[in-house]
Amino acid sequence: MSKSRSSSLSAHAAALSSKSTANQSKFFKTLGEDIWKNKIEKINAELFVMTYGVIVQQLCQDLNNDYIKINENLFSMGYNIGVRLIEDFLARTALPRCPNMTMTSEVISKVAFKIFLNITPQIENWNTNRDSFSIILTENPLTEFVELPQDAMKQLWYSNIICGVLKGALEMVQLDCDVNFMTDVLRGDLTTEIKIKLNKILKDEIPLGED
Amino acid sequence: MSKSRSSSLSAHAAALSSKSTANQSKFFKTLGEDIWKNKIEKINAELFVMTYGVIVQQLCQDLNNDYIKINENLFSMGYNIGVRLIEDFLARTALPRCPNMTMTSEVISKVAFKIFLNITPQIENWNTNRDSFSIILTENPLTEFVELPQDAMKQLWYSNIICGVLKGALEMVQLDCDVNFMTDVLRGDLTTEIKIKLNKILKDEIPLGED
Repeated sequence: MSKSRSSSLSAHAAALSSKSTANQSKFFKTLGEDIWKNKIEKINAELFVMTYGVIVQQLCQDLNNDYIKINENLFSMGYNIGVRLIEDFLARTALPRCPNMTMTSEVISKVAFKIFLNITPQIENWNTNRDSFSIILTENPLTEFVELPQDAMKQLWYSNIICGVLKGALEMVQLDCDVNFMTDVLRGDLTTEIKIKLNKILKDEIPLGED
Repeated sequence: MSKSRSSSLSAHAAALSSKSTANQSKFFKTLGEDIWKNKIEKINAELFVMTYGVIVQQLCQDLNNDYIKINENLFSMGYNIGVRLIEDFLARTALPRCPNMTMTSEVISKVAFKIFLNITPQIENWNTNRDSFSIILTENPLTEFVELPQDAMKQLWYSNIICGVLKGALEMVQLDCDVNFMTDVLRGDLTTEIKIKLNKILKDEIPLGED
């Protein structure tokens, strides 16, 4: 990690390490709300929803409704956004590296989702190793007014760009994770659930020529 | 025009007809600001900017950097958004039909740009017939952090989706217009200018079987 990033990340580290899990949770909630309210340039959500809708439509057209490929494309678009968005996220939040996936899940739900999409999804379904959990999207701004045709309902993960963004962003903080939709109310499911599973913690890459 | 829309549009008509041009201008400014502040669901502008960037990148890839085709595609995506976005715009603003292009330009600048992109561009360069004017984007949220490669600078209208949105939305209120970028600071120009030229006022289409 570069020196400049290390120092920007240290701003909240001391404050966080002394807090209990419940207090950390409150801390993240307040942090996310404060950044959203005071430090974020905003635009009309409906314009974003429609623009996203047009992307999906375009892909359906270009890829002849091959929903498997469309899912992959949405994921890859999201990945490219995530690897860039994380820089801005770290700069704005000044958060330190998370020591465990519990804290990672809190940061994703209460800070990241809050400051990018203005929602705070639930975290559930932890496995016993505490390296896999689910994000339950009780609301999803991307899908407002969206209805899928019958054939798409079986295969398309309409909001798959979100999984890509999470994958890309997590990778940039050395967390190699699988990120997948498990259910989606657009497909007739009762919930919309994204599962995140940590595969391994990547080593910091040291650029050639440096120690 | 359907009866329900006629009635929703009449809400501000009386208030507007009694105002001078300067007062109308103030009225639109206040209306745009009020709707933006109180009635719009918002999301992070940077997420939108990046998502739009990914669309353009994807088109460059799919169309082998054929910038003429990319411009057409962005325009057509925008058109599809505009023809749908106008419904929401009319519902939220409850504005009546504009009696002339002067008022149309005010509504575009102070209400539409405000509530969708949170900017208020300048209106300039009227022709003598008052049926053609320019929108000067002194700021453009779509292009923050964007730099074009040399070959794209000559041909790509990066924000062409905006022209498409305007074309589609205006057509739905019976205004057949040409909407084109004239200059763009991304291309090294001193300003970013969109020209709108009214071709003709379309007749309301009456569905078959109705009088």
